[in-house]
This record gives sequence, structure tokens and C-alpha cells, in this order.
Amino acid sequence: MRNIKIILEYDGTNYHGWQSQAGSKRRTIQDTLENALLALTGVQTKSFSSGRTDAGVHAMGHAANFKTDSRIPSEAWAPALNHLLPEDIRVLSSVEVPMDFHSRYSALGKVYKYVILNRRSPSALYRHHAWHVNVSLNTAAMRRAVACLVGKHDFSAFRASGCGAKTPVRTIKSIIIRKKVDFIELRFEADAFLQYMVRNLTGTLVEVGLGRFSSDDVNRMLESRDRTLSGRTAPAHGLHLEKVLYPDIFIN
Amino acid sequence: MRNIKIILEYDGTNYHGWQSQAGSKRRTIQDTLENALLALTGVQTKSFSSGRTDAGVHAMGHAANFKTDSRIPSEAWAPALNHLLPEDIRVLSSVEVPMDFHSRYSALGKVYKYVILNRRSPSALYRHHAWHVNVSLNTAAMRRAVACLVGKHDFSAFRASGCGAKTPVRTIKSIIIRKKVDFIELRFEADAFLQYMVRNLTGTLVEVGLGRFSSDDVNRMLESRDRTLSGRTAPAHGLHLEKVLYPDIFIN
Repeated sequence: MRNIKIILEYDGTNYHGWQSQAGSKRRTIQDTLENALLALTGVQTKSFSSGRTDAGVHAMGHAANFKTDSRIPSEAWAPALNHLLPEDIRVLSSVEVPMDFHSRYSALGKVYKYVILNRRSPSALYRHHAWHVNVSLNTAAMRRAVACLVGKHDFSAFRASGCGAKTPVRTIKSIIIRKKVDFIELRFEADAFLQYMVRNLTGTLVEVGLGRFSSDDVNRMLESRDRTLSGRTAPAHGLHLEKVLYPDIFIN
Repeated sequence: MRNIKIILEYDGTNYHGWQSQAGSKRRTIQDTLENALLALTGVQTKSFSSGRTDAGVHAMGHAANFKTDSRIPSEAWAPALNHLLPEDIRVLSSVEVPMDFHSRYSALGKVYKYVILNRRSPSALYRHHAWHVNVSLNTAAMRRAVACLVGKHDFSAFRASGCGAKTPVRTIKSIIIRKKVDFIELRFEADAFLQYMVRNLTGTLVEVGLGRFSSDDVNRMLESRDRTLSGRTAPAHGLHLEKVLYPDIFIN
């Protein structure tokens, strides 16, 4: 038996997120991947993911792993799976990793990118890949508000009500806000994220950019640990899982 | 009667190019726009375009104009049309222009961007918006080959066999090749382009990047005026009409 780690890129537009939903007919990335694994190996093969993603969220570097008795060489899994997967899911790489590697439990951190289109007119080309905010955002104010969020905090105020994580404490390493012509990209790196955390932080930072909240308001929301005080949840389609970080020994 | 100029952005994936095709049931951008104009005004309204685009080609700045007796204020056409158009076509702006303005005949030039994804693995996110070339391209060699193409030349060697233009002479103002991580973008500015000209030039430049042709070969192709000697036609889905250039008096 071997343990294979793969990196996936996907366009989440037509999927109901990563995770299989028992008894549901909704199409998920996990089901689609596991169907391809079954077609390739003839054996039902469970995949382990670095985490769930919400319906409509995209990924450039979603990590997953699976254990298999198949003799397919490790680097051949990527092209073989791509042959069977729909075009909106691509396996970028496949490597053999130690048997104790688990995409979720071995992860040191994750990087998410949230893309905002900040101009008056909506976009045809980015309609599924950027949140259209048609009022000009004050990125300097957004950058100031980020300061209180970076570091180790109880992020209860930015957590989905249904979030099942054992602890609401997470460590944000950085939030970088870049303006690129009409686009504003928010890049979040943390040890892990709570459910909806990036979307709730983004929604709140956008309200800062609109002048509705100050940096002090954001600090008070964080300290309140009360979800009802923070900003709206940014839509899923602007969110991209950029990469999952692992100790050097697992890097491919 | 007034003359309204609009700028369109569209995702060409699900369209058979700009131009209406008499007797064909293929969906085109022009038909879709004219259906929206009819729904909005109650009057069959013909639209004039800066040019055709091939099936699958995208645009960030396609210019068109139409003449109308409707009293809709000029700046209200964009949101009103967006309300009726499918999401993969957006009107970015609408302005009233002098009656003698014609999107095609008034144009001074056009800018096209061709996007190549140059890495080993295919992409899920860019599958409809970049040509995947999985062998590393020598961009320095591509930049050298560009030199002989810039300027006023007979581009018969890079013209589609069915191209109906009266003359094969065009003036290329610039071809800029930019490498951005895994992407290579080719930006072409010219007074006008022949049918398939950008795709044929891109296909040839990619063969230069692969080491199959030298700069001298490209120069010989150009001078031969013989289409059978030049490189392959790059696929439509990497091509984007970035903008159409007009005299200052028509700018919105």
C-alpha cells in the first residue's frame, strides 16, 4: 500500500464544494475525484483533503491524498486522472508521500486569495471568479484594519454559526491587500481557518473600505467574539484556495 | 435619431463569434445584443461592430454602435442592456457619438491580447481563456522574431485563406511579449488585422519559442506572402480583443 499526495486546481462554479454529502445528489469535487480513482483502479478509494471548500469556491492548489495498492507510478497519477476527470478539475502533480501523511493533519497552514472587482461595471469574464463591488474601496483604510487581525486570536466573531471546529483560536500570519488596476486581491495566510472565516473577514474589510466600519470597529468585533456584530459574508465565487503549506519532507 | 457607442466585455466560450450568420442557428454576440436592443426599444435595431471575432474569442473592450429614436439617456443604455443580456456579455459603457461615427470605419487601431499558459499541467481555471503549451517557450527568441513583423507589411503569409479584406497590407505598431509566472501574454497593436492574423502570428511565434523556426525563418515567411510556409493557427480561446482605438473626439 502506498500513500499518494495530489495537488488539484478546480473551477468550483459547477460544484457544491469539496466534500461528499451523504444521500445528496449534489455534485462535489471529492465525489468526482473518487469516481475517477474508481474508474482508474477498479477499487473504491477514499480521498483525504486538506479541508472542505464551500460551494462555488475555486482552488489553484488544493491538496489531497489517498492510499492505494495500485502499481501506477506516483508521477503517472496526475495525467491518468486528468484523462478521466472533467476539464474543470485538473490534477497538477502527484507524488508518493510517507504513509503517515494526511492532507489535513500534516498541514502547517493555508493560503487563500479573495478577488474583488472594484469598478462600476460588472464583468463578463470574471463573473464567476471575482466579487463585483461597484463603489470605490479605500484600500488604505482596509490595510489599516488588517493590523488588529494578524496574529493569534479567538476568531468567533468571524466564524459561521454552524462551524464545527473544536477551538475558535487561529493564527493569521499575514493579510496582504494588493490593488491591480480594477482588481483588489486579499491574500490570507493562517495556520488554519474556521468555516466562512475568509469570507467573513473579507466582507468586513469591504465594509471598512466603504467607510462603514473603522479599524477600531474591527478590533471591537474581534474582541466581542460575537458574529452578529461583524460584517456580511463575502460571496463564495471570489474565493480561491491558493495553496496548502506542509513541512519540507512532504513538499512536491 | 441618435448614434450610441457601447463598449462590450464578453466571454466568447459559448458564442460563435461576433457576427450574425444568416440562416444559421448558431448563437452570436451580435444576435444576442440585437435581441436585447429589440426587447428594450421595441424596434429592430442593427448594431455596427469594430470587427468580427472568431468563435470562442473573448473581449474586454469590443466597440459597437447603433442608431436609435429611443429617448433612453445615453448613459442608461449600459445598465438597461445588462439587465436583458446574459451574464457572459456585459456593456461597460454607453455614450452618444456624432451620427457619422462607425465602430469599424472610425477606428484608428485595435489591441489584441493572446494568453498562453506555459507550464506542464493543464489548468482548470484558464481552460477557456489561455492556450496551454506544455513545453517551455524561449521568450527571448520570440521577442527577437517580433522585430521583423512590426511596421507596415504585406501580411498575406499570416492571413486566413478565406479572408475578404481588400488589401493584405497592415501596420503593426507593437508586439509586446510579457512573461507573468506561468503565463506568456502577447499584446498586438495594429491599425487593423486580417482574418486569423493574430492567431497565425501567435502560432508562428510559439514555434519560434519551441526552437522550430528562427527569426530569419519568420522574416522569410513574411516576405514569401505564402500562408503555407508560416506556422499553425493558435486556438481561438487564448485570444482577447482588449480595445479599439478611436480619435479623441469619439472617446468615452
